[in-house]
Amino acid sequence: MEMSLEKALTTVVTTFHYSGREGSKLTLSGKELKELIEKDLCLGEMRESSIDDLMKSLDKNSDQEIDFKEYSVFPTMLCVAYNDFFLADNQ
Amino acid sequence: MEMSLEKALTTVVTTFHYSGREGSKLTLSGKELKELIEKDLCLGEMRESSIDDLMKSLDKNSDQEIDFKEYSVFPTMLCVAYNDFFLADNQ
Repeated sequence: MEMSLEKALTTVVTTFHYSGREGSKLTLSGKELKELIEKDLCLGEMRESSIDDLMKSLDKNSDQEIDFKEYSVFPTMLCVAYNDFFLADNQ
Repeated sequence: MEMSLEKALTTVVTTFHYSGREGSKLTLSGKELKELIEKDLCLGEMRESSIDDLMKSLDKNSDQEIDFKEYSVFPTMLCVAYNDFFLADNQ
């Protein structure tokens, strides 16, 4: 196994804090979420509307900021999507 | 950033499938979940009762096997725990 699960989960946490540069270090703004997605997920340019929709779905308390608990749903959604892709690829 | 978030999430998926050796490759038994935790999470020996409790909490359809969707809650729980530890450590 090239990389341990523990290191992967630590990366999920540190990437979040690494991306929270402006304002509170403990939350992400829409701009910071967009940067994280484009830089750390290599998903290319995201439309503002897609970021707004994602922010709305993650920002449970509607304070325009994403804390880690709100954010943690996002990597899970991506893992489930990657898993579906992984299964389709292996059929 | 030493390791991209994308690689970390891919590791979460591949670790699951890598660990599903016996029976269905697409699910984890209690034994396989125990092995994953002890080997890939370096959490040391886990008591059978702890594994049983974790299995019960993850195994939503009670088929004694954990599919990926059921499993995906577990890394999220760990990330939130790591985050709390990360915050406490940085205060």
